Amino acid sequence: MASTNPARGTRDFLPADVRKREYVIGIIKEVYESYGFEPLETPAFENLETLTGKYGEEGGQLMFKILKRGEKLRQETGSSAQASGLADLALRYDLTVPLARVVANHRNELPKFFKRYQIQPVWRADRPARGRYREFYQCDVDAIGSTSELVEVELISAAAKIFDRLGFSDYVFRLNDRRRLSEMVLAAGIGPTLETDAMVALDKLDKIGKDGVLNELIERGISPDAAKRFLAFASDSEAAPQSDSLAKIVDLLSMDIAVKDDPSLARGLSYYTGMIVEVNVPDLPGSLAGGGRYDELIGMFGKEQIPACGISLGLERILVVMDERGMFPPEIADSTAADVLVTILSEETAPESLKLAAELRERGIRVSLYPEADKLGKQMKYADAIRVPFVCVLGENEIAEGKVTLKNMRTGEQTQASTPDAAASIRDANKGV
Amino acid sequence: MASTNPARGTRDFLPADVRKREYVIGIIKEVYESYGFEPLETPAFENLETLTGKYGEEGGQLMFKILKRGEKLRQETGSSAQASGLADLALRYDLTVPLARVVANHRNELPKFFKRYQIQPVWRADRPARGRYREFYQCDVDAIGSTSELVEVELISAAAKIFDRLGFSDYVFRLNDRRRLSEMVLAAGIGPTLETDAMVALDKLDKIGKDGVLNELIERGISPDAAKRFLAFASDSEAAPQSDSLAKIVDLLSMDIAVKDDPSLARGLSYYTGMIVEVNVPDLPGSLAGGGRYDELIGMFGKEQIPACGISLGLERILVVMDERGMFPPEIADSTAADVLVTILSEETAPESLKLAAELRERGIRVSLYPEADKLGKQMKYADAIRVPFVCVLGENEIAEGKVTLKNMRTGEQTQASTPDAAASIRDANKGV
Repeated sequence: MASTNPARGTRDFLPADVRKREYVIGIIKEVYESYGFEPLETPAFENLETLTGKYGEEGGQLMFKILKRGEKLRQETGSSAQASGLADLALRYDLTVPLARVVANHRNELPKFFKRYQIQPVWRADRPARGRYREFYQCDVDAIGSTSELVEVELISAAAKIFDRLGFSDYVFRLNDRRRLSEMVLAAGIGPTLETDAMVALDKLDKIGKDGVLNELIERGISPDAAKRFLAFASDSEAAPQSDSLAKIVDLLSMDIAVKDDPSLARGLSYYTGMIVEVNVPDLPGSLAGGGRYDELIGMFGKEQIPACGISLGLERILVVMDERGMFPPEIADSTAADVLVTILSEETAPESLKLAAELRERGIRVSLYPEADKLGKQMKYADAIRVPFVCVLGENEIAEGKVTLKNMRTGEQTQASTPDAAASIRDANKGV
Repeated sequence: MASTNPARGTRDFLPADVRKREYVIGIIKEVYESYGFEPLETPAFENLETLTGKYGEEGGQLMFKILKRGEKLRQETGSSAQASGLADLALRYDLTVPLARVVANHRNELPKFFKRYQIQPVWRADRPARGRYREFYQCDVDAIGSTSELVEVELISAAAKIFDRLGFSDYVFRLNDRRRLSEMVLAAGIGPTLETDAMVALDKLDKIGKDGVLNELIERGISPDAAKRFLAFASDSEAAPQSDSLAKIVDLLSMDIAVKDDPSLARGLSYYTGMIVEVNVPDLPGSLAGGGRYDELIGMFGKEQIPACGISLGLERILVVMDERGMFPPEIADSTAADVLVTILSEETAPESLKLAAELRERGIRVSLYPEADKLGKQMKYADAIRVPFVCVLGENEIAEGKVTLKNMRTGEQTQASTPDAAASIRDANKGV
């Protein structure tokens, strides 16, 4: 018999999970819309060549590739199959490269400044670990077309507003700049051919610590002295070269937003060209969000070089922290399948129960109809299991009197009422009246 | 240079497309919730063996399979690669098999009757054609755990309510029953080993017509006489064997819902065991929705045989018809990126523009801030391009007077106002006051 587990590193989301996810996504959308960002969606998979060479060292290995089909597959397999020719598509690895492709593809239809948000899953064949999945949602917001620091300011403001609205109060935006990192490399005496190595190593600071990074810098061929000078810059924002662009961003940001000038911030993806940012909270290793400016990525897809900047919120990590801290409002944390269960006491009264359910729904009530004629006790037990706050019992007596018996499952109270009155009682209880 | 097109058979959804999709999805969710169905989400890919053998003749060939990774792939390739061992995962082909897996996996946590809806994309490597994509959304609603016809009645009622809410008035639910199709096969004198062949051929009636089906029945080894008798039943609901179950469903359904007893309805998927249903409108070849009862699918994943029934709405087809008929309300059809554009006339006044944007957002207005200091003419041109109804101009004069200049882009009217008054004007115009 086949296993009933989802594939390794992926998850099924049961109703209570989906409701929490949708609550967070709803707030993210609302805030992005309030900043004039518009929704975009792209396909789950891209042509392999669209994604190839965009993600630096690690990215290529972690892509899920899709096997060719039919005749094309038959041509590749057989006596001399090479893994390289077997796939023609790959699952989306992030939302930024698809955006760059879309912008290059639709340049003439899109406004000069295109402000979009995109909330979709991405897939990475990483080793699954606590909080690290192979399918996870990113919530990206990007502004295309301007090199102005006002773009960074608006993006950071919008992300901060989202964290505020979700109830976070202890988040910090760590800021750095790729150009400043290059200056640090230069000033430390590291040759330009080793710049990428220096950044890849520095990006591991959170995971392997200062000594680990030092060792890795040396292993990658950087002299111990240069490596030490580079790390000294990274750990002291005063000693590190200063960035005019960062100063401008911090100056324009609302004083309410906690920012930290952090020359040790590197970020792994290879396409960043200017400001880079990560958002941290004390109780989570890794970041809640990250992003940066990438002025040269879109040019890889089109004739035109178009500047761009964006921030990506990590939905899964936001949910982990919110769950651990109990940050969901009660209507989400204690959500139920329906406001009321309507019983079916016999085959004969089923049409009346159907009618009652329809009438309650017309009045805005979420109604679950028990799906078959059954003993009342069993139906009450089911009502308990799905935690509905009310049950409407409709037997022959009630039908004869044109009433329903409404049972409040929290208090145990039971009353006879007309359908409109029953609906009103259910609605009032819902509103907490 | 890499192509900027999305992969074959897939689409990018620009903001106006996403808004239409979300409008329809919003109504679908709302109605399903009002019937007590709860949201479920499953991963984009499943273990290959989860999907294998569940979709009948055609399904296996149309699955997108994901290449094994790392060492496992190296073991499969080289001198003797076989296509069969290269993949270990496949993209979701429908939402029903994943549901069956989830129900078998979570049997003890889920209520006795599990009513869920699921709105997610599925992928099929079909030849792309007008209205046929390789990535498309399904909107499924299923009720697990009961064999009662009340389940079918509630599912059909909910689907009908959705079509009503979307503004459809000419849809018809075509109903049939797999057990009745078996009786038709038997009564026509077709041997039980050819039953599946008979159904697969009949399922093509819409595409290849009566003569085409007759030929295919004969090609599949059914005698011409039996084939003709079978087709005669299929085209005459009076002559075909009657189904008590269908009669009960039709009897319990609200009279407002147009239903047709259609013995020619077959449906391709092999897992159906009872009622089957499709929803049609006159101007669309193919169906807007389809589904049926599948009492034996969940048992393929668990020890327990659990009855189930569901309907799947085809989002893409619903959108095609709604677009062609112009069925979207104006606020969706004419949606804009923001309610107002705030200008930036100089680097010096940028902080004031940022502040104004923040204040308007506090008042519930969707504000797009022009991202850099620029000539007013260019900013007005951009406002036209993104079709915002208002522009707030903030220059040195306005700042000195503590006012903003509010331009109504529809009427051309220009007024000076305080920020709260400007916000009120924008809000009122939004409400159509």
